[in-house]
Amino acid sequence: MALVNEHFLKLPNNYLFADIAKKVNAFKVMHPKADVISMGIGDVTQPLCPAVIEAMHKAADEMGTAEGFRGYGPEQGYDFLREAILKNDFLPRGIHLDIDEIFVNDGAKSDTGNIQELIRWDNSIGVTDPIYPVYIDSNVMIGRAGTVEDGKWSNVIYMHCNAENGFVPQIPKRRVDVIYLCYPNNPTGMVITREELRKWVNYALHNDALIFYDAAYQAYIQDDSIPHSIYEIRGARKCAIEFHSYSKTAGFTGIRCGYTVVPKDLTAATLTGERIALNPLWYRRQCTKFNGTSYISQRAAEAIYTPEGKQQVKATIDYYMQNAKKMLTTLRSLGYEVYGGENAPYIWMRVPDGNSSWQFFENLLYGANVVCTPGVGFGPAGEGYVRFTAFGSHEKTDEALDRITTWSKK
Amino acid sequence: MALVNEHFLKLPNNYLFADIAKKVNAFKVMHPKADVISMGIGDVTQPLCPAVIEAMHKAADEMGTAEGFRGYGPEQGYDFLREAILKNDFLPRGIHLDIDEIFVNDGAKSDTGNIQELIRWDNSIGVTDPIYPVYIDSNVMIGRAGTVEDGKWSNVIYMHCNAENGFVPQIPKRRVDVIYLCYPNNPTGMVITREELRKWVNYALHNDALIFYDAAYQAYIQDDSIPHSIYEIRGARKCAIEFHSYSKTAGFTGIRCGYTVVPKDLTAATLTGERIALNPLWYRRQCTKFNGTSYISQRAAEAIYTPEGKQQVKATIDYYMQNAKKMLTTLRSLGYEVYGGENAPYIWMRVPDGNSSWQFFENLLYGANVVCTPGVGFGPAGEGYVRFTAFGSHEKTDEALDRITTWSKK
Repeated sequence: MALVNEHFLKLPNNYLFADIAKKVNAFKVMHPKADVISMGIGDVTQPLCPAVIEAMHKAADEMGTAEGFRGYGPEQGYDFLREAILKNDFLPRGIHLDIDEIFVNDGAKSDTGNIQELIRWDNSIGVTDPIYPVYIDSNVMIGRAGTVEDGKWSNVIYMHCNAENGFVPQIPKRRVDVIYLCYPNNPTGMVITREELRKWVNYALHNDALIFYDAAYQAYIQDDSIPHSIYEIRGARKCAIEFHSYSKTAGFTGIRCGYTVVPKDLTAATLTGERIALNPLWYRRQCTKFNGTSYISQRAAEAIYTPEGKQQVKATIDYYMQNAKKMLTTLRSLGYEVYGGENAPYIWMRVPDGNSSWQFFENLLYGANVVCTPGVGFGPAGEGYVRFTAFGSHEKTDEALDRITTWSKK
Repeated sequence: MALVNEHFLKLPNNYLFADIAKKVNAFKVMHPKADVISMGIGDVTQPLCPAVIEAMHKAADEMGTAEGFRGYGPEQGYDFLREAILKNDFLPRGIHLDIDEIFVNDGAKSDTGNIQELIRWDNSIGVTDPIYPVYIDSNVMIGRAGTVEDGKWSNVIYMHCNAENGFVPQIPKRRVDVIYLCYPNNPTGMVITREELRKWVNYALHNDALIFYDAAYQAYIQDDSIPHSIYEIRGARKCAIEFHSYSKTAGFTGIRCGYTVVPKDLTAATLTGERIALNPLWYRRQCTKFNGTSYISQRAAEAIYTPEGKQQVKATIDYYMQNAKKMLTTLRSLGYEVYGGENAPYIWMRVPDGNSSWQFFENLLYGANVVCTPGVGFGPAGEGYVRFTAFGSHEKTDEALDRITTWSKK
């Protein structure tokens, strides 16, 4: 008799963005004329830049000719892209990686979800709270998260990040084997300083822990002192895997391309204490369960590293960051307590008057026809906060801020 | 201390196609002037058809405009493609599927590897032998395959397919929970009749087993009596998940698109006997660990269902099948015992003189400078066979057959 993987049944039934969509739809049915502006889901809105479009046309043409056609590519990505990554994302920061340490993927979500396959089923997991839900859910599915009570998993260690501790996660007292960090942070939009990141690397090195470091939003960092990669910290090559994405860097949410760095120095232990390198294990995983990223998407990604591509991508990031700046200014002037938004496209706002995340979400939707994301959807410590994204157009963002202003002053 | 998933360490170190590449490279170093023709790896060679190229250009242009830009698509694929699939791949065969039963993916390899996540870790696995290695390796990685001895896994039931039983797998005496079937078969190129497939569906229904049915090569079927989908068999909706791929159908090995069918009637049991529908579980899995297939690739896939696209795709399949026909004729005329190749792009040949797969591989490489795939790489029952692919150009295929003819007559 085929038996189901019952760990799946432990997952919460409701999915944050599906819940939001349902509530927004209910509102729209009741108010068919209302023009709802979304500052909820973290998806980009601006078109792909010309250098990327040109590269995709060229790649498509190649695929239509006998000489240019390419079948299966290498599972770990084409060298043209991996070399561009090394040369542009790491070398300028003094990070020397080997080309075999780069694994091109179809976006960071897949790999942040799949990476847990490399570790034993009973390793304990540490996450900041609030957190991007994939880190926990992917561990729940395999049974590693344990059992749930009051929204918390028994084998997950939650490191609270809130206004009271300056959104700086503290090293937990309970032993943790694998730590997920995401900086700039989704959902809070906060960053980590070099000194704070060094604490985590040192903890991992001294305790033989692993860090899964999600750098999907690194392109939004404006402050030169903030690290773009965990490998800027000495020793990180021995304890950290890093995830990058072109989704937010270059608007690739519909194109699907990113990459994962698995250094060759990185090892984990067997029960008998043998050290096993994770790079060849990840290579083997990818060769078995993945067949490489679309050639068109890889050529598109390569194009963002050309001089024109760099300029165009930066212009779009600047565009979104102008939104973020206006949002911070307006919300602050209205007396709201806001965080993030300076080195990230997310603004994390404390809900006033002791209301819950969902209450504020509904009030804002019905009062200003603007959608935000209830912070509690990102974990227990997100209760009492909401997330706004800066990924809208200037026009929509301005309009939303005007509405919030009018509504707040009522 | 972070511990490694030790199941990975049980995987055989050598990977079939890497081994072949190594041996071919060694030969090339010694014989730098030799012009080696590969009939080994199952990758296509002919360019993408014009309808597909045009669709990709159009999609790329859309992504460069404010109106046409698309960010995250639905994880399960765009409706335009899912509707085309229902209308073209299933309705004409009398199969009525719901749009929510189709999950677009980035190729069949990912989903045939990932689908095992839905079932309990200790379900037993049945495979035909020889077999596409991903089915077993993906189960080894999670510990479901058990321990290995003489190349066989303790929790895997092997159903031998060889000339002696006409390559028809027999229902095993030992109880099996999940059965992987691939038809037309990779590597043997053999097909399954409606009657034989019905036996498996009935077995699954009566024993509460699941069938994972890989139909990646269905577009190559020439014989009208052979089923293209397991859902042509009554009752299969209650016991089977089916995998499709555009890789071989339309040359998408570099573009990455396929789909998986998970019927809503399909359930598996919990330990307490509760029936759990697998469709919402797979949806949840995909939403957590996958972010949809590239929009460009989905538009490309849609284009193969247009009248021009259908014609162009059929022309390329006919082209490859002309190779297969010539290969069968030539090899037979030389006295070789050959199978498959009539409804599939693969030809499975018995190695003469009681030689091993690898011996014949080396003899052919050194004697005729032609690369085949040693059958033993697909499982113990593949020993004594080799696989040839029909995916070459006409010119290379003719040349390879001429060389094999000369070499065989020596």
